[in-house]
Formats: sequence, C-alpha cells, structure tokens
Amino acid sequence: MSENNEHVMVHEDKWEKQNEEEGFTLWFTGLSGSGKSAVADRVGLRLEEGYGHKAERLDGDIVRQHLTADLGFTKEDRNTNIKRVSFLAELLSRNGVSVLASFISPYRERRQKTREQVTNFIEVFVKCPIDVCAERDVKGLYEKARRGEIENFTGISDPYEEPENPEILLETHEEEIDESVQKVIDYLDDNGYL
Amino acid sequence: MSENNEHVMVHEDKWEKQNEEEGFTLWFTGLSGSGKSAVADRVGLRLEEGYGHKAERLDGDIVRQHLTADLGFTKEDRNTNIKRVSFLAELLSRNGVSVLASFISPYRERRQKTREQVTNFIEVFVKCPIDVCAERDVKGLYEKARRGEIENFTGISDPYEEPENPEILLETHEEEIDESVQKVIDYLDDNGYL
Repeated sequence: MSENNEHVMVHEDKWEKQNEEEGFTLWFTGLSGSGKSAVADRVGLRLEEGYGHKAERLDGDIVRQHLTADLGFTKEDRNTNIKRVSFLAELLSRNGVSVLASFISPYRERRQKTREQVTNFIEVFVKCPIDVCAERDVKGLYEKARRGEIENFTGISDPYEEPENPEILLETHEEEIDESVQKVIDYLDDNGYL
Repeated sequence: MSENNEHVMVHEDKWEKQNEEEGFTLWFTGLSGSGKSAVADRVGLRLEEGYGHKAERLDGDIVRQHLTADLGFTKEDRNTNIKRVSFLAELLSRNGVSVLASFISPYRERRQKTREQVTNFIEVFVKCPIDVCAERDVKGLYEKARRGEIENFTGISDPYEEPENPEILLETHEEEIDESVQKVIDYLDDNGYL
C-alpha cells in the first residue's frame, strides 16, 4: 500500500510540474477585420488579470517591426513570417508563457507545421464573412485592395484556406465580443489550462 | 506596529514577485573559438539542474536555422541577426526565463542597443587572443578565412569591437572552463539573480 501511495505521489508531482511549467499558444487565424486582435487582446487581459498568467501578445504589427521587417505579403513571405513567429511562440510556450498570436496566416499547410512545432497549440478560427470584414474595414484596406492598390490581399487577390478542425470556432459576425472571449476562456478551463 | 508590519509585507511581496517573474539574459560575446558556447552550455545546465531555472540557449546555429536563415555575415546582416535575437531574448527575459545567448556580435553599437532593449542584460566578454582561437579552430574556419575562402570573418577580414565595460570578463586562455563557469555563477549570485 505504501508503494501504491508513492506511485500516486510521483504521478501527481509530475502532472503538477508539467502544468506549472508549460504554457500554450492560442493561434487566432482569420481574415483582416475578422476581429482576431480585438478578441486576443481581451483574452490576454483576462489571463493576466484574472488568472495571474504571464501572457504575450504577438501580432503582425509587433512582429513585422522587430523580427520580419524584411518580408512582404507573397505566399512565400507570409509563410516565412509565420515560421519565425512559430519559433518564438514555441520558445515562450514551453517556458510557461500564455501566447496570444493573431495572424491572418492564410495557408493551411503552414498552420499545420506550426501546430506540430508549438507546445500546446490551440487553433482559434475567427470566422467572419468577407463582406462584414470589408464593411468594418477600419484601415480602408479592403477598399484599396479592390481598387488594386494593394497586392496579395487575403480574400481579394489571395486565398484564405479555412481551418478544418480548429479547437475553437468564433463567429464574430453573430457573437458579441464578450461572448467570443468567454468561449476561449471556457475552452482553456475545460482543457486544464486555467 | 501592525501598520509597519503590513508595509514590510507588501514590500517583500513585491520584491518576491519581481524576482520570480523576471529572468535575465547572459550575453556571451567574443571571437569564434573563444569558448562562448562551451561556457554558456555549462552555465545553462547549472542553472537548470542546480537552481531550477527555466533556461534557453540561443546561438547562431539555432537562430540562423529558424529565425534568420535569410541572413549572411556582412555588418548589416550581422546586426539584423542580433536585432531579431534581441527581440526574442527580451520576450524570454521579461517572462522569467534565464537566457544564455552566445553570438560573436562584434559591433559595439549593436550590443549597446541590445543592452537597452533587454531586461536584466548581462554582458559576458569571452576574451581570448585570436592566435589561441585559431589554434583551437575546431571547424577549420580560421584556416579557410586566412586563405580568403570565407568572407567577413571576424578578427581576420572584419573587426571585433571589444566591450569596454562588460559585467563579466572571462579569459578563457588562462582559465579552466570550470573557473569561467563559476565566475558567471558567482556574478549571478552576488547580484541577486540566483
């Protein structure tokens, strides 16, 4: 019986250690204007303030300034961008950080590679019809893309390959932002990340 | 008196929190063959095994594969390489990771920028006369550089700008490797990082 107890103890210790040391990467993918960043920002705040997590937001603006200033928006450049971000996300994730990465990341094959590379990768498909994204069009990008002033624009002149089995599906044209945020938190809670 | 106690408690909590949350970056700079990686590897092991730190080794081989495959060894490319690594080191450092970065990083101005960018940056100058480095020349690089088969080789066809005020100075031609490792550990201990 003491052997059994010991066995249980060892098992629990290992489990606790793993939970304590590993973080995760929430990977928000979707069209420009779908709401990726808005949801990711709020989830990040909830994780830091409500759960005491170390959280890092990674998005195109941050990363293209510091890590990938040399890259454009062709398929090859987008994939290289995501490759570098994935390396970063993995280093953070495996060291206990909760990573909130929001990137259009339109190519399925590249997202699959990221999934294989990153500890506790959680794909969040931020689904929103392109017409709704274009109506929101805060930065006027869709308008420019339709006039042909921006090349390689996802959804207009470049494809967006939808996730087939994302861990989390958000439908931001039908949900209030707080609902979307809560869906993510619930997923994390249900799967032992909180 | 209970107010005083409370004050002390708050102070201690804050201090513990800071210590717990922040890591540091040991930045090993020096010529090829000076011993940067050998020392950094061993310090990393000591930190993980002896002190329970989360440690990450960053070096040219790792980083140029995942993050900077596009870059060569001109001054501009070297500095871009270090710029990207610095971004990574800062993200890890500020999230409680002990980073061991070993890069020739020959340009003083670029190292200074890294210092300003990275939380708890500790410069380790791995000093070794170039003739000793060339004698060690495990990969035969100095020989090739002298024959002109490698361009932009630090110390031969490109400059190495020595640190003026490194936090730690290692003189690997006069010290046993364990001595160098202990110097780094002692510095960390003396400065409240352990």
